[in-house]
Amino acid sequence: MSKFWNDKIKEIEPYVPGEQPKDKKYVKLNTNENPYSPSEKVVEKIKSMNLKDLKLYPDPDVSKLREVIADYFSKKISEKFTKEQIFVGNGSDEVLALIFMTFFNKGDKVYYPDITYSFYPVYADLFDLKEVKIPLNENFKIEINKYFGVDGHIIITNPNAPTSIALKLNEIEKIVKNNPTQLIVIDEAYVDFGAESSVKLVNKYDNVLVVQTFSKSRSFAGMRLGYAIGSENIIEGLNRLKFSFNSYTIDRISIEAGIESFKDDDYFVKTNTKIIETREKTVKKLKELGFKVLNSSANFIFISHNKVFAGDLYKNLKDNGVLVRYFAKDRIDNYLRVTIGTDEDMEIFIEKLNKLL
Amino acid sequence: MSKFWNDKIKEIEPYVPGEQPKDKKYVKLNTNENPYSPSEKVVEKIKSMNLKDLKLYPDPDVSKLREVIADYFSKKISEKFTKEQIFVGNGSDEVLALIFMTFFNKGDKVYYPDITYSFYPVYADLFDLKEVKIPLNENFKIEINKYFGVDGHIIITNPNAPTSIALKLNEIEKIVKNNPTQLIVIDEAYVDFGAESSVKLVNKYDNVLVVQTFSKSRSFAGMRLGYAIGSENIIEGLNRLKFSFNSYTIDRISIEAGIESFKDDDYFVKTNTKIIETREKTVKKLKELGFKVLNSSANFIFISHNKVFAGDLYKNLKDNGVLVRYFAKDRIDNYLRVTIGTDEDMEIFIEKLNKLL
Repeated sequence: MSKFWNDKIKEIEPYVPGEQPKDKKYVKLNTNENPYSPSEKVVEKIKSMNLKDLKLYPDPDVSKLREVIADYFSKKISEKFTKEQIFVGNGSDEVLALIFMTFFNKGDKVYYPDITYSFYPVYADLFDLKEVKIPLNENFKIEINKYFGVDGHIIITNPNAPTSIALKLNEIEKIVKNNPTQLIVIDEAYVDFGAESSVKLVNKYDNVLVVQTFSKSRSFAGMRLGYAIGSENIIEGLNRLKFSFNSYTIDRISIEAGIESFKDDDYFVKTNTKIIETREKTVKKLKELGFKVLNSSANFIFISHNKVFAGDLYKNLKDNGVLVRYFAKDRIDNYLRVTIGTDEDMEIFIEKLNKLL
Repeated sequence: MSKFWNDKIKEIEPYVPGEQPKDKKYVKLNTNENPYSPSEKVVEKIKSMNLKDLKLYPDPDVSKLREVIADYFSKKISEKFTKEQIFVGNGSDEVLALIFMTFFNKGDKVYYPDITYSFYPVYADLFDLKEVKIPLNENFKIEINKYFGVDGHIIITNPNAPTSIALKLNEIEKIVKNNPTQLIVIDEAYVDFGAESSVKLVNKYDNVLVVQTFSKSRSFAGMRLGYAIGSENIIEGLNRLKFSFNSYTIDRISIEAGIESFKDDDYFVKTNTKIIETREKTVKKLKELGFKVLNSSANFIFISHNKVFAGDLYKNLKDNGVLVRYFAKDRIDNYLRVTIGTDEDMEIFIEKLNKLL
């Protein structure tokens, strides 16, 4: 504590990222990283860049990368997206923080599930918002009708974390339609592993803002890139904030690497498909071991065993060289969140479980 | 404008970075970039990194880079600095923004010169602070006694921008001593080009926070790295905010490149010395051409001619392929800020001036 900290810093409880222990080599299934490296084309691009140009500022508008992302979605969805509809940030957490600062006034209500990404309550506190947590139902599903006609902003992770369960596009659309004057933020960090993207709603409704990240499906956790897709007016607001906060957030290497990642769509599809296959094989084996496994559309699964307490299993797995994530929180303290690694990673995980159960 | 923007985004005037025109190749003396590339060792490090690891999150604590910076200053100043005294951010603008969010409460007063880095008024507006602008004297110098015993936070760029004039260490120390209960932020973006660093005050006074950047003296504008040095308590506050805003701000490549930059001190000293030499040669020639040149301790100079209006000169130089920075603002609208490039850059600049005057 320092007398110079302001009132907020004195009371805030910061977010706690997944542990990154350095004591030994773990099978690391705790921070939802992609087990596959970035595309070889990305690696080659970085190695062949003229790094002498690092003496010069990057393009503060990040125009080229925004254009590539806009073109990608234009093709994918067969609708026109412009670069003015894309905002790029230093990881999707930065994009989320800037969204809270751009669209929410102090004292506003912000609605999200009681069980969801644990950074939202931190943002709500940091920016003096009134959080309204809407309980997931007994099956950990979002009940969409509870979000209809609310008197505040809405942020929904889809698929939700750490539950892994996705809403369908028409369910999200109902929430959007039933709150025409409220901004609906859809955080799609895990969408590429089996859920439907709400990018399809962006040109149809003016109150949808979709956030995606390079950290999971693009194997780029170590690079820090995230983006938001919305109407040009909404994105302009984010840029107004960015240029009032930090003009040059994306460095030259990240810009070029990000462009290359979007260009190599084959690799992107191949690795995501592989992760989904590994997930389904893993789920099958876990069910045979007596686990309850929620229906995952993500690169992680959320599991519980009726005989062994999740907190104990977490510790025993760690002692055996396998890191998973455990949240000692209401309703989910008997669950583990397990990232889907390679087939080999998951075989080791199952093998350790076999011993520990 | 969008109905979803909050009150602040509707009214704020964002910062305007120096122009980066792409229409033709300019001698670019407008954004205070370093004319020399980063050290070859930095370039080699990036090329030899295992980029496959980009699939994994970087260390959110940025421990290794913070240690290297702490060790560097421990040696340079012959005093012990710990990594807990170093905060690393995504460029020094991000560090500054986070400082405003960590130490200043809404409604607080914040003091800075009437002519200084034009991002401070944007931050003051963004975070609802009361700015108190203290006029520089008629020679564009900071009058330190005007900062004694003030009822608010103080932020001083040293050397100041765009004036290029530095305060001496004992002058800064007097401001620090005369405000023991206020945090004094010293923004040293340009300190390595001839000013004395206030890092020497950090272990002596608990109310000093020094900000430096890789963008200028470390030839890393394209990479985005900045840092703050202060007491462990003060830095802990910044980390509390960081982990409430964006946990992973520094990517894996930036961390390794930043470490390598601090290791190659010979190159750092050599390029900075060269820029200072080029500056002094340029100043001499400009004075011969009838320019008034403020006494620079930076990698830029602030110049005015009694016969030709600075705004016209800016335009004519641009038409002739030389970009400098012009601020159409009170008191400085007959001045140009000119970055020091290579000897060759400055010869072209002088040659064009010779034609235009």
